[in-house]
Amino acid sequence: MNFLTNDKLTIVGAAGMIGSNMAQTALMMKLTPNICLYDPYGPALEGVAEEMFHCAFEGVNLTYTTDIKEAFEGTAYLVSSGGAARKAGMTREDLLKGNAEIAAQLGKDIRQYCPDVKHVVIVFNPADITGLVTLLYSGLEPSRLSTLAALDSTRLRSELAKYFAISPDKVLNCRTYGGHGEQMAVYATTTSIDGESLSKMIETGKIPSQDWVDLKLRVVQGGKNIIDLRGRSSFQSPSYLSIMMIAAAMGGKPFIWPAGTYVNNNKFDHIMMAMETVIDKSGVHYNMPKGNTSEEKELDTSYIHLRKLRDEVIEMGIIPPITKWSTVNSHM
Amino acid sequence: MNFLTNDKLTIVGAAGMIGSNMAQTALMMKLTPNICLYDPYGPALEGVAEEMFHCAFEGVNLTYTTDIKEAFEGTAYLVSSGGAARKAGMTREDLLKGNAEIAAQLGKDIRQYCPDVKHVVIVFNPADITGLVTLLYSGLEPSRLSTLAALDSTRLRSELAKYFAISPDKVLNCRTYGGHGEQMAVYATTTSIDGESLSKMIETGKIPSQDWVDLKLRVVQGGKNIIDLRGRSSFQSPSYLSIMMIAAAMGGKPFIWPAGTYVNNNKFDHIMMAMETVIDKSGVHYNMPKGNTSEEKELDTSYIHLRKLRDEVIEMGIIPPITKWSTVNSHM
Repeated sequence: MNFLTNDKLTIVGAAGMIGSNMAQTALMMKLTPNICLYDPYGPALEGVAEEMFHCAFEGVNLTYTTDIKEAFEGTAYLVSSGGAARKAGMTREDLLKGNAEIAAQLGKDIRQYCPDVKHVVIVFNPADITGLVTLLYSGLEPSRLSTLAALDSTRLRSELAKYFAISPDKVLNCRTYGGHGEQMAVYATTTSIDGESLSKMIETGKIPSQDWVDLKLRVVQGGKNIIDLRGRSSFQSPSYLSIMMIAAAMGGKPFIWPAGTYVNNNKFDHIMMAMETVIDKSGVHYNMPKGNTSEEKELDTSYIHLRKLRDEVIEMGIIPPITKWSTVNSHM
Repeated sequence: MNFLTNDKLTIVGAAGMIGSNMAQTALMMKLTPNICLYDPYGPALEGVAEEMFHCAFEGVNLTYTTDIKEAFEGTAYLVSSGGAARKAGMTREDLLKGNAEIAAQLGKDIRQYCPDVKHVVIVFNPADITGLVTLLYSGLEPSRLSTLAALDSTRLRSELAKYFAISPDKVLNCRTYGGHGEQMAVYATTTSIDGESLSKMIETGKIPSQDWVDLKLRVVQGGKNIIDLRGRSSFQSPSYLSIMMIAAAMGGKPFIWPAGTYVNNNKFDHIMMAMETVIDKSGVHYNMPKGNTSEEKELDTSYIHLRKLRDEVIEMGIIPPITKWSTVNSHM
């Protein structure tokens, strides 16, 4: 049947739109025959499993459960979109607190039930924070967990292709690093458009500066735009891209976009952020992005924002002060 | 990039849940780089296209339009989920009339803009009727249009696997023919379960007769069950299976399930129904199902039901009496 691996893959939050699309995507990509769908909400989970059974995929052992022990035990790969969505009347802090708490429990569950998991991909927002919290409580080495951070880069590719009315394939190596959305740091020096350097095009006015500002705004608002157009949150692209990350971790096709990863070096301190990354069978590894002075300054600003969010979660008491992290996870 | 073909594929109803999943499925399967998404509702259509752009598929020329001429001209393959959903207060007849009228217009549009289309797959309900009406007005040869009819068979496979607690892969060759849901004719003689004949198991009471009745009811209510569990209509399995039909028509992997096809022979008269079919580059071709006496009787009953639906649509004035069909489509 030509599966990439026989290792068990667990999809957390499988009852939701992103999770159910992940299930179909993973099955269609033939990542592994052994897929377990997990969600605490049983009825919709069963409905998703039924949909997959009715597709009649061949050679697969698809299971579903609301029992976290059954879902996590023996799993080698885990991807989670299982956060809460922002509801009416909820502040940004409410959402941060709620999802950070979910991430803390997810980390503890990983530690308890699948400490040997090979790779974990975290998708629920804000992914850099939920990924960091999950990593801390899981006890995993940082190379074994990454977060979905590619959407700003793929949206930049799409907006540039539309702006120049060319094929997206002619827009190469779009990169945003650091945080997500408004906090992203665009590295235009890395990008070429039909062979021309994007940063040169900005400098020379081939993209007028207001157009460039507007284009970046469209990238930042890419998710909001889908809600406005479609009346529902983006779910197809986050699920597809996060399963592509899992595929790379299984030794499949290289994942060519930035991923969020744990960074702790002489420049960035105890943080999770989008970096220049490689994901392969040995996990996620990063290189520091190389940009011009203003790009690096943008990345510093993005880092400061992420640090602030992290410190909020420390103040909420969901994670301990950094000085105590190594007692929770010896790799951090 | 290893696409199956370079021919244009048009997805009609692409703004909806089934249509948007078809788009992702076709792109992931690398059927063709040339995919056009069509829907009369522009904003959601654009939202779906944005999701696909954000997936950053490589080597594809994905377009979207609300202009039917642009969408249909030059297309070689067309799949349509573009019917109306049943709304509160709508009778069965209202739905039939509404979707039959949509099908009539779809057929006329095919005739006007893409009379050379190689294959059309119709998904919207009741597909045997909407497929028949589309075929009539399109002027196409019957081999160039099929309807999605596989879900009853795949649901039967799934329910039998669950009943015997075995892998669905051990349930071979499930077949339902004729109409859909309550009107399906189950051909148990075709099916084997872990090597044993299903019809023998029914005869010998290895499946007690009440269990078999209950199991068939679960198959019939498979779609309703998903609505109950998930709070939304099934969309992943119909889109996946219908794109598999298109793939087979493009010369890809054989489609192993029954499809709805036009039948006009000494037994069944001017009707579209699920048959034993092969879909390949030359289109859809059928063989008469072979079953025991009671199965063939069930199929006759199913045919009579479909004939009644067809005659209702004639009475509604949406299609002419059968005697005049050949003036509308010389192949019928």
